[in-house]
Amino acid sequence: MQAWEIIVALYRMWSDGDYSVIAQLVAPSYVIHSDPGDEWEGKSLDHATYTERVRFSRNAFPDLKFELQDMVAGDDRVAVRWVARGTQYGDLPGLPATRRRLSFAGQTIYEFKDGLVAGHWQVIDRLGFVQQLQPTVKDARR
Amino acid sequence: MQAWEIIVALYRMWSDGDYSVIAQLVAPSYVIHSDPGDEWEGKSLDHATYTERVRFSRNAFPDLKFELQDMVAGDDRVAVRWVARGTQYGDLPGLPATRRRLSFAGQTIYEFKDGLVAGHWQVIDRLGFVQQLQPTVKDARR
Repeated sequence: MQAWEIIVALYRMWSDGDYSVIAQLVAPSYVIHSDPGDEWEGKSLDHATYTERVRFSRNAFPDLKFELQDMVAGDDRVAVRWVARGTQYGDLPGLPATRRRLSFAGQTIYEFKDGLVAGHWQVIDRLGFVQQLQPTVKDARR
Repeated sequence: MQAWEIIVALYRMWSDGDYSVIAQLVAPSYVIHSDPGDEWEGKSLDHATYTERVRFSRNAFPDLKFELQDMVAGDDRVAVRWVARGTQYGDLPGLPATRRRLSFAGQTIYEFKDGLVAGHWQVIDRLGFVQQLQPTVKDARR
């Protein structure tokens, strides 16, 4: 598969929860270089832990769907712009299920090794995320 | 200039405040396609308004410096990963000067037209930003 095909399949897996494809897409050691707010930031994930990470998000948002909005492909890296939508049916740490529907934007740069996706650097609009689930959180402009 | 050279010069301008170079780098109509929390999101900016936008950030953070951490270049778009650092010496809407030093991560996809940078889609870790200035704002995990 081309790098962009792996990304399309990866986002499909995040959206449909078919974890059986993970081993065909993700390197045996997947590095989360930077991802503020992510529990696994800074860690290297094997396939079981990668699966656990997807399951964690899909447990909180069982109807989670990712929309790929743009890709910019370099030699060994692909930058992606995406929007995720879902309903918080499950509990999150410090935030019992709100049953609120939300959408949040993110951008991610993926690295590839030996034809598999092997890590990422990610930024999510966590304030927008939090405000949709907890409308009392104050806004602040740059 | 190549697209990547324009990006390097653009981040230098954001970091040193030499607004005189804006007309050489930025298209006459610069579109902020998506940038949650940005006052100018969804708008098209002429050079004067673009300058005002940079000045707004540099007034709040006069020592603002951007570190370019990665670039992924496509045909007419460049994806950038960056970290900004600065001290809030100026007031922000709803947040009088805290004199706190902070750093925050972002990723941006820029589009180019006729050899100039003509717009962007951006995601900033606004929650990390807010928490460094207002430590009482609660965390929330995905």
